[in-house]
Amino acid sequence: MVQTPYFSAVSMVTLGVADLTRARVFYEALGFTAGPGSSENIVFFQLGALVLALFPRTPLAEDAEVADDGQGFDGVTLAHNYPSEEAVDAAMAHALASGAVLKKKPQKVFWGGYSGYFADPDGHLWEVAYNPFVKVDDHGIVTL
Amino acid sequence: MVQTPYFSAVSMVTLGVADLTRARVFYEALGFTAGPGSSENIVFFQLGALVLALFPRTPLAEDAEVADDGQGFDGVTLAHNYPSEEAVDAAMAHALASGAVLKKKPQKVFWGGYSGYFADPDGHLWEVAYNPFVKVDDHGIVTL
Repeated sequence: MVQTPYFSAVSMVTLGVADLTRARVFYEALGFTAGPGSSENIVFFQLGALVLALFPRTPLAEDAEVADDGQGFDGVTLAHNYPSEEAVDAAMAHALASGAVLKKKPQKVFWGGYSGYFADPDGHLWEVAYNPFVKVDDHGIVTL
Repeated sequence: MVQTPYFSAVSMVTLGVADLTRARVFYEALGFTAGPGSSENIVFFQLGALVLALFPRTPLAEDAEVADDGQGFDGVTLAHNYPSEEAVDAAMAHALASGAVLKKKPQKVFWGGYSGYFADPDGHLWEVAYNPFVKVDDHGIVTL
């Protein structure tokens, strides 16, 4: 194994989007504030220790030198964790009022929690969940 | 707008994988340590304030009640940021030694940084980058 300090962190998650303005409007309605470096070409949100970026899908694929040929299920989900079922319901209502598309109504799920899913305007999936088995702090940060 | 405390945090990113053991072996080789709750059905890594989860792709799609019909480019990239070009090269060498697939050799890029991409065993894309315009702390956390 190569000796190198390999950071145990995900510093940024970038979502490829079809319409940057539409995506920015959605995430701002959700409550995120665009940070320094945001422009008509890219948008950054500082979410605690993570940066969520929005970038047009085609140049994102080009940047990674992969074909922009994807469709269907991403194979990736992002999640917000909440401290109660009621908080999940309220958060989902807020997301839908912000223009999210309901994919799964919040409900009790097989693993013992309560969760639902919404899609952003590009179909990226967000889970909104209450998990009785993990700690969630006042900022929504989960500790295993 | 519904009044609700909507957390400005991403608490978890879940990657859908075809072979959970293969994916776990890869991320452990990369240097991540599986945390509490990990089993033969799901794997969790606590990465600072974020939890990265690995979950078989088909039940992940079922959990979100979406069709498991995706292929090609995810439309999502995850990133590690490093403090120098040399650190990017070392991190990429480490990832490749861990079984990652090189998608883009680290190089100077149009936005003024230095970056490359690798794919995990399921094709999920990770960027390894040096960005001279952002601060990176000793844990790889970026502040805009």
